[in-house]
Amino acid sequence: MRSYNVAVVGAAGLVGHKILEVLAERGFPVGGLTLMATARSAGQTAEFQGRKVTIQEAQPELFDRVDLVFFAATGAASQNLAPEAVRRGAVVIDKSATFRMTEGVPLVVPEVNQEALDGHRGIIASPNCSTIQMVLVLAPLHRARPLKRVVVSTYQAVSGTGREAVEELDAQTRDLLAGRPATANVYPHQIAFNILPHIDKFTPDGDTLEEIKMIQETRKIMSLPDLPITATTARVPTRVGHAESVNVELAGPLAPEEARAILSAAPGVTVVDDPSANLYPLPIEAAGRDDTLVGRIRRDQSVPHGLNLWVVSDNLRKGAATNAVQIAETLVARKLL
Amino acid sequence: MRSYNVAVVGAAGLVGHKILEVLAERGFPVGGLTLMATARSAGQTAEFQGRKVTIQEAQPELFDRVDLVFFAATGAASQNLAPEAVRRGAVVIDKSATFRMTEGVPLVVPEVNQEALDGHRGIIASPNCSTIQMVLVLAPLHRARPLKRVVVSTYQAVSGTGREAVEELDAQTRDLLAGRPATANVYPHQIAFNILPHIDKFTPDGDTLEEIKMIQETRKIMSLPDLPITATTARVPTRVGHAESVNVELAGPLAPEEARAILSAAPGVTVVDDPSANLYPLPIEAAGRDDTLVGRIRRDQSVPHGLNLWVVSDNLRKGAATNAVQIAETLVARKLL
Repeated sequence: MRSYNVAVVGAAGLVGHKILEVLAERGFPVGGLTLMATARSAGQTAEFQGRKVTIQEAQPELFDRVDLVFFAATGAASQNLAPEAVRRGAVVIDKSATFRMTEGVPLVVPEVNQEALDGHRGIIASPNCSTIQMVLVLAPLHRARPLKRVVVSTYQAVSGTGREAVEELDAQTRDLLAGRPATANVYPHQIAFNILPHIDKFTPDGDTLEEIKMIQETRKIMSLPDLPITATTARVPTRVGHAESVNVELAGPLAPEEARAILSAAPGVTVVDDPSANLYPLPIEAAGRDDTLVGRIRRDQSVPHGLNLWVVSDNLRKGAATNAVQIAETLVARKLL
Repeated sequence: MRSYNVAVVGAAGLVGHKILEVLAERGFPVGGLTLMATARSAGQTAEFQGRKVTIQEAQPELFDRVDLVFFAATGAASQNLAPEAVRRGAVVIDKSATFRMTEGVPLVVPEVNQEALDGHRGIIASPNCSTIQMVLVLAPLHRARPLKRVVVSTYQAVSGTGREAVEELDAQTRDLLAGRPATANVYPHQIAFNILPHIDKFTPDGDTLEEIKMIQETRKIMSLPDLPITATTARVPTRVGHAESVNVELAGPLAPEEARAILSAAPGVTVVDDPSANLYPLPIEAAGRDDTLVGRIRRDQSVPHGLNLWVVSDNLRKGAATNAVQIAETLVARKLL
């Protein structure tokens, strides 16, 4: 089997580490491995298949002879370096929001729209964490009964922000339990024992960019440019695992048991839905898994064909690293790499 | 000014304590004060206006010569003892769900429907915490443009369950931070660093009773028996302050700035809505306040006249004690006590 020279930009971060972990777990045919980060993190090491690899400062020359680059760094890094990598012949899988809505850049969740990879021009975008887990559930429902409208509210873990946010949650929690005040650096307010209805920047209309991403990316991935959808995104004091309360209105009747059957058969989705046994998706149980959990599937009586669903996924795995690695696997399978 | 002999059933609990605190703060004319609880808590004391009052085991005879009883105990206590209290001439303000949907029992949020108190038959119900804060915001919007549909998802604090849940959250959090496993007793799963889409019992349809309460109680309080409304309720690892992501569809256009003006003028509601300054309602800031905070008021583009709102309130105060004490004040003002 052919192997590929792989690079990871942002290799010092939570998602960068997770990409290395998932590449190894899934046995992706990694030939050479180049790890990059900012100057600040250069010289650190990250582990791949039990060996330590030194992280270098990211620069265009390092992309020479690289087949595939995962960008798991800032939007600025993707903006500056992804075109350089493509120019040098690499295919880029970008975890940042930079190119997601760019015409001609495939935005891919392999279980949902892998055919969008065909004819790519070097950069492939992986969607926002909160979008990925939602479309995994929406797409199979939509194939059964077209979606008329989606209303989603999220409960997002701090690891989505990065390692320093996880550390801040822990530090604030320790301080508050000890009767000391909490210090906020990463977020504008205390996150421990609190909820922030604020993820990413605000637009002039009062939406957050996270909410806009969920709307626009869902429409692009599902090829439904006019899908009526609204989102409210909130950060909660959990470490890993985003939860979503998803309300859908469908074009025709779909009983909860039918929705359960459809979702049980959907790739990447596991139905966890037995309330009588206290079984429903939980962030602590989704953490470490690659599948997206869905439960609390029930009728919404407020519209003719409404359903409520509760969707939980590991935001670092399927929401980031796993989806990116699956894109790589799909590129190989479709002979696009 | 006339004073009233007051009793509190459930005086050892979080809400019972908070009722005593709020009665004192607001200068309710308390004459005699009788505190009751289960046999297990009898003999404990609770503080009222700086003096310690001994809690007695609840029994019918203790309601003799009592004018007003707050029930802040279990549904079973209300079921058994509230009719006894009424028979002995007391007026009951019941915080439990027992009589809320009973025909002829007023279910009251004074800012919204205090006229429902007229003609009461001795028992007045105070709504569920998550309902109260929502109707405070829905009612003024509805008067401006009739509500067509409501979709709500909640983020509820553990103090809504009681003192033992707050202790469990703290104990689990300490254990997990120390690398020890968490033990769950109060909830079926770990609540620390987790989210449970499960509040109160499940119905055969897969809704929780908390969700059913939000639907039915909102309809009753607002006298809109057919209001299309659906709810998803979740417990989050916060101590005090329920948050709600409220999506409304109105019968006519209402610009966010107009909604802000209406809500700024609404009694019991404070608008906190300046995203550019990171100002939006937070549980830790709602805690200890009697007003309900609303912010993130913005257009929902997925329907013709949609709005999203983020509503936060202290579930022990306006969600429980303050609303009950306000009902008592309103009874006095309307000469119904």
